Amino acid sequence: MSTTTPAGFRASGVTAGLKASGRPDVAVVVNDGPDHHAAAVFTTNRVEAAPVTWSRQVVVDGRADAVVLNSGGANACTGAQGFQDTHATAEHTAAALGVAAGDVVVCSTGLIGELLPMGRLTAGVTAAVAALTDEGGAAAAEAIMTTDTVPKTATATRDGWSVGGMAKGAGMLAPALATMLVVVTTDAVTSPGDLDAALREATRTTFDRIDSDGCMSTNDTVLAMASGASGAGATREELTEAIREVCADLARQLIGDAEGAAHDIEIVVRSAASEADGLEVARSIARNNLFKCAIFGRDPNWGRVLAAVGTTAAAFEPSQLDVSINDVQVCRAGGVGEDRTLVDLEARDVRVLVDLHAGTDEVTVWTNDLTHDYVHENSAYST
Amino acid sequence: MSTTTPAGFRASGVTAGLKASGRPDVAVVVNDGPDHHAAAVFTTNRVEAAPVTWSRQVVVDGRADAVVLNSGGANACTGAQGFQDTHATAEHTAAALGVAAGDVVVCSTGLIGELLPMGRLTAGVTAAVAALTDEGGAAAAEAIMTTDTVPKTATATRDGWSVGGMAKGAGMLAPALATMLVVVTTDAVTSPGDLDAALREATRTTFDRIDSDGCMSTNDTVLAMASGASGAGATREELTEAIREVCADLARQLIGDAEGAAHDIEIVVRSAASEADGLEVARSIARNNLFKCAIFGRDPNWGRVLAAVGTTAAAFEPSQLDVSINDVQVCRAGGVGEDRTLVDLEARDVRVLVDLHAGTDEVTVWTNDLTHDYVHENSAYST
Repeated sequence: MSTTTPAGFRASGVTAGLKASGRPDVAVVVNDGPDHHAAAVFTTNRVEAAPVTWSRQVVVDGRADAVVLNSGGANACTGAQGFQDTHATAEHTAAALGVAAGDVVVCSTGLIGELLPMGRLTAGVTAAVAALTDEGGAAAAEAIMTTDTVPKTATATRDGWSVGGMAKGAGMLAPALATMLVVVTTDAVTSPGDLDAALREATRTTFDRIDSDGCMSTNDTVLAMASGASGAGATREELTEAIREVCADLARQLIGDAEGAAHDIEIVVRSAASEADGLEVARSIARNNLFKCAIFGRDPNWGRVLAAVGTTAAAFEPSQLDVSINDVQVCRAGGVGEDRTLVDLEARDVRVLVDLHAGTDEVTVWTNDLTHDYVHENSAYST
Repeated sequence: MSTTTPAGFRASGVTAGLKASGRPDVAVVVNDGPDHHAAAVFTTNRVEAAPVTWSRQVVVDGRADAVVLNSGGANACTGAQGFQDTHATAEHTAAALGVAAGDVVVCSTGLIGELLPMGRLTAGVTAAVAALTDEGGAAAAEAIMTTDTVPKTATATRDGWSVGGMAKGAGMLAPALATMLVVVTTDAVTSPGDLDAALREATRTTFDRIDSDGCMSTNDTVLAMASGASGAGATREELTEAIREVCADLARQLIGDAEGAAHDIEIVVRSAASEADGLEVARSIARNNLFKCAIFGRDPNWGRVLAAVGTTAAAFEPSQLDVSINDVQVCRAGGVGEDRTLVDLEARDVRVLVDLHAGTDEVTVWTNDLTHDYVHENSAYST
């Protein structure tokens, strides 16, 4: 049930005709309270879509009553008209719900640089509001899909309260964040400050650690809403842990469904001098096209791992680097280790372990291989 | 004739059996003087191959008598044994030529993480030294090829002196530098200081401005040697200009032969606040996989250009960005411009122009599209 698993939330998903495919494309999630706490993290791309600009302002005061989401168009790079369209979408949703437009978060996803067909969108919003139910989480999750092949939902249940979530995102997954739209709900009794802190801490080690293709979106939004409807209180730590569980689950689903991927790759950087060092090294490997092509070809080409590590400013000595691929230590002390032909890359899951021998920090990043299908899907997306 | 076009140089290329294909794989270029000036720029990858470590020391004193190059193995990530092998290669070449090993530059290219078959390599060096002629430039250029489909040579002729060059490199082309081995020769009368300055200035705006796949090699070397054999003097400016002409020619040949590429893309960033800003923006676009897939699919997806620009720290206002693709201004003032369907992407050459409206600097970077063939070639390279 995802976002409607926690009490106090209704959701829906309908077909407004924004997608050429005729699949559902407008979703609404409403927080019926009694609390209306909200927090969000957004893309750090300086070219941000109109709905991101709008929604940043909505959550500044820690309150939101609803979120309206559309696929079939990103409303990015659409100028003043695009912002007016986002504003109108919020106004229309607010009027249908009887709330203030300034408490309605708006999310859009799809092609950049096209105006939304507002007539169809507002009709869709009307239909979505009419369809809201406390079992609508699955329908909402389906309506936000773009090139996703499956809807993504997750839940975490605690003693008397729960967290639910849905996500969309299949390409353009990159740190901070990842062409993703995510809505997380909880019925725990908390505060806006705790909700914000919990969301930021949870995304830092989940959505910020997946990197499918190194590309950063103009529209990424991760929204959290808390209704307090369970009447059960959660500490900041308890809430953080539960939201992290849901975000980690959704993040792995995003990687598992990334465009055209044939392998899911877990990159673990061990013995880094700092978390920042480990992250820089892991991301450098995750973004190395040659390494990603090699994994697609089931080729344990560890030289490409070292070449990627060597481009970073992290603390390490080249002559001390160890690399294991699927538990075979193919590189030892910067040189040739075990026979690379011992590495089995048939399975979808691949684990690359790099030991920097420079400290005590460990960082994990998830990515995909680079495949024919990735090229195909991303060369045909808008045509 | 490439490296043997200037007087005072002999070269050769032979088959030593390092490549499974049986193609030529060992080259030697000798500077017979009277001058033996040398300068070089190397990869900035911290994981550098043994021959790079060796050759950095060779050129410190501004002198080199010869360079020996092999394809069929990079001798990178090969530890102490790898360095001993490079040293032995220099010693063997030096003995055959009657010069000091400390004046022999060594370059290797091929798979990382494998030791070279030294017996075959030294026999090849012996044969290559025996085959040296003042018309051997073409044979040398052929022997350094890896996945290149054609040898790359260029020359620039001036009044009484000339510059010649050869290059190899087809994938892993990225700034500073680009899985490339380049040897540039000149018979101008110059000084080691002028040669070094001319080479650095020439590579800064040529090899450092091509970026095929964002990956940086462990072996990149660009070596310049000056014989003075023409007896004709060249000022630093004249030498810089001639070396730049040869390097620019070779750089374009590298991009034109990049692995699997279907389009050569020129990215011009105009009205940047600084050269560094323009370069950051241009490289961000050149490394955006989604943009590169779109060009392969003949899709003028300018939203992906803006999404790439938005990840940089360069000075610009999102609402002022202009983007043209093949002279059609598809994005105007950060929003929708001319109809994107007017853009014709059938031809191999593509030109993307981004106007930041933030200053007066202009930077050009060359890259390729991301294609099925790129994935294929790089997933099957070592297998």
